[in-house]
Amino acid sequence: MSRRALLGLGGGLVVGAAAAGAAGAVAVDAARTPDPAPSPADRTYPFTGAHQAGIVTPAQDRLYLAAFDVTTTDRDALVDLLRRWTVMAARMTQGLPAGPFAPASGPYDAPPDDTGEAADLPAAGLTITFGFGRSLFVGAPGATAPDADRFGLGGRLPAGLVELPHFAGDDLDPARSDGDLVVQACADDPQVAVHAVRNLSRAAFGTARIRWTQLGYGRTSSTSTAQRTPRNLFGFKDGTANLKAEETADVETHVWVPADAATEGGTDAAWLTGGTYLVARRIRMHVETWDRSSLREQEALVGRTKGEGAPLSGGTEFTEPDLDATGGDGKPLVALDSHVRLAHPTQNDGVRMLRRGYNFTDGNDALGRLDAGLLFLAFVVDPRTHFVPMQTRLSAQDGLMEYLVHTGSGLFAVPPGVPDGALPTGSDGTPVLTDDAPFIGQALFA
Amino acid sequence: MSRRALLGLGGGLVVGAAAAGAAGAVAVDAARTPDPAPSPADRTYPFTGAHQAGIVTPAQDRLYLAAFDVTTTDRDALVDLLRRWTVMAARMTQGLPAGPFAPASGPYDAPPDDTGEAADLPAAGLTITFGFGRSLFVGAPGATAPDADRFGLGGRLPAGLVELPHFAGDDLDPARSDGDLVVQACADDPQVAVHAVRNLSRAAFGTARIRWTQLGYGRTSSTSTAQRTPRNLFGFKDGTANLKAEETADVETHVWVPADAATEGGTDAAWLTGGTYLVARRIRMHVETWDRSSLREQEALVGRTKGEGAPLSGGTEFTEPDLDATGGDGKPLVALDSHVRLAHPTQNDGVRMLRRGYNFTDGNDALGRLDAGLLFLAFVVDPRTHFVPMQTRLSAQDGLMEYLVHTGSGLFAVPPGVPDGALPTGSDGTPVLTDDAPFIGQALFA
Repeated sequence: MSRRALLGLGGGLVVGAAAAGAAGAVAVDAARTPDPAPSPADRTYPFTGAHQAGIVTPAQDRLYLAAFDVTTTDRDALVDLLRRWTVMAARMTQGLPAGPFAPASGPYDAPPDDTGEAADLPAAGLTITFGFGRSLFVGAPGATAPDADRFGLGGRLPAGLVELPHFAGDDLDPARSDGDLVVQACADDPQVAVHAVRNLSRAAFGTARIRWTQLGYGRTSSTSTAQRTPRNLFGFKDGTANLKAEETADVETHVWVPADAATEGGTDAAWLTGGTYLVARRIRMHVETWDRSSLREQEALVGRTKGEGAPLSGGTEFTEPDLDATGGDGKPLVALDSHVRLAHPTQNDGVRMLRRGYNFTDGNDALGRLDAGLLFLAFVVDPRTHFVPMQTRLSAQDGLMEYLVHTGSGLFAVPPGVPDGALPTGSDGTPVLTDDAPFIGQALFA
Repeated sequence: MSRRALLGLGGGLVVGAAAAGAAGAVAVDAARTPDPAPSPADRTYPFTGAHQAGIVTPAQDRLYLAAFDVTTTDRDALVDLLRRWTVMAARMTQGLPAGPFAPASGPYDAPPDDTGEAADLPAAGLTITFGFGRSLFVGAPGATAPDADRFGLGGRLPAGLVELPHFAGDDLDPARSDGDLVVQACADDPQVAVHAVRNLSRAAFGTARIRWTQLGYGRTSSTSTAQRTPRNLFGFKDGTANLKAEETADVETHVWVPADAATEGGTDAAWLTGGTYLVARRIRMHVETWDRSSLREQEALVGRTKGEGAPLSGGTEFTEPDLDATGGDGKPLVALDSHVRLAHPTQNDGVRMLRRGYNFTDGNDALGRLDAGLLFLAFVVDPRTHFVPMQTRLSAQDGLMEYLVHTGSGLFAVPPGVPDGALPTGSDGTPVLTDDAPFIGQALFA
């Protein structure tokens, strides 16, 4: 059999477990082998584990996110795709080509398994994180049978995978919103992240099609206390108070879906236990208008100083804002409509989010204004408690809203990880596809 | 006078030379001061010199390129803009904020000189390179007086700044083509490059407006022998035979405009001596189609192996292709329609280009296909000899054209640099704006 069938570009072909050893014997492209003296670019994160990587992983510098529409109604084809994606992701995140037939090996009369543009690049900390949109379970809003439950998953809809309400200031473009599947690729090299999505998209040919993508060039959140706080396109530090991986108790409480959520709402969503939800919002910033506002106004709207990022109630960046402190005029130092106040956990029933957003710049509009802003990404235990109430308040009261418009939106259930050691490997020790290999989201289809 | 007037956001205000010392006394934001132990990200390139930086400079990893339309007909306003841009570029390329009024200093009731999102980032090897489009001299194609010569520059049009002909396979979008001015910002951190263009665009408010921009995430050419050869989105090494900075004699011959070109065509273009021309072509690649072609076809079309990048006539990456070598079937090993053959200097009257292109990915189209490809950038001594003939042949005969479409195009005259030591500095030694400061392209307006 042909080695290219391993990734079954159009046909969903897989090899039996017995053949995996032989297939795995194909030499791995030496150019992808990690350097013996690793630099930060050579960093790799395990693909497997109790949770998916790319969530509490220290936020990499670059993002390529893609949402897909499933174009088939064949449940087996969807499962085949998830199985292919799982092994490809397990390989690419370790700096390996997407499949064993790399450019340096034959057969010459077939397309290579890997598109090649990352062949000389290290893994660059690549993580690939998968999620499922509400439409995968119940179809697009208003869908009726058979579209509403194409894959027989309606009874598995998690209670938190709601239709998000309309928020004040939303101007959502359907072509930049929603999707049946989502793939978040993060890396310290954008070419590595784009390569990953391109190869996954290629493997989806005939099964799923890209609905929208977003390239993010600068992370706007830290997810580890070891990381410097980055800046958003308002020029302010962002994510100072973000939930960090090191805050393990809060991560348990605010990120991972607990077992007791599995039967809420009458569906069987036990498959999501140990997973999370990803909220994605494409927020265009009117940077030209912002840039003409005074430093005083900018700081008042954010509630922090622009240079240091300290709360206007005093201190340094990591000083807790004193929301009760008032100035000589008797007014709060941290204004009532400031972002820091409105987003503070004490104003939001104690909820915290693990934010993992990125700055973007997508060219310009016809008036020469940059189409730039923030792709807000947050992982939360339940969007009904951890996103909707806060966004409802922010969109109505936050002074920053004058400079923002939300142009895209997505909500995805992110299943737990594939357990360590579960993926079959070939004789060279790298992951290979078999017809019974475990895959991301497998419990949903069990 | 107010410090914010230094960059005259809307009004073109400049301070007199006598005031520059006082203005310069404003402390530079300490956060931008280069780290005492420089890493690659802290690399800085001089802004001044006989030639502009960003041409033979070792190609940085990321690009943000912006073309502008001048929206005024006031020649003095255009000169003011170039003077502001020059000092801002001289500052930002050294890791300084765009102007001395940085966020950490007042006055609070004015907008800061710098938008801030690069405040904590090192210079990351930033270069900023400026150029002038044909329309700046003679207006848009078909323009008549007074539009044709808004700035009295018609008599200064360089002979090489032609209207490019239509090439086979062109499907040019006017909204992604041409422009009166161009700014190429290259850096190893995309946020630094975007920050530079954003601040220059801001300073242009009322004088010039962004016409099109292009973000490039992966360089596709080396411009120094010290650099590894990168890969384009076909997965092949690109720019193996590119003209390199170390080939100083060829750089003189093929890149820099000689003095004897100044009077060709009856205009006075002495201002361009020591400059060059920038050819920009936005080339969309049909990557999905390419990815379904066999390795054999891919290699035959390129004329090199995909893994090593060696010519199909044998050897390793840097072996010179043997265009006469034939295989057992009597056919050339490097096919007649292969890219390597058609682009080889021996097939093009010995001309060489200094290529400096970047991969791009701009989302997807309605069919879910990636809008991805190559922003071809090349610096050449004369586009009439060094681009048009080759592109005419490639567009008609290159087998790769089946997988390409050119969707944008620009040609710009790139003036020489501002001489070392010419820019006025404040008491802290950083460049400051004065009403008689030298500026990029000054000889054009003399």
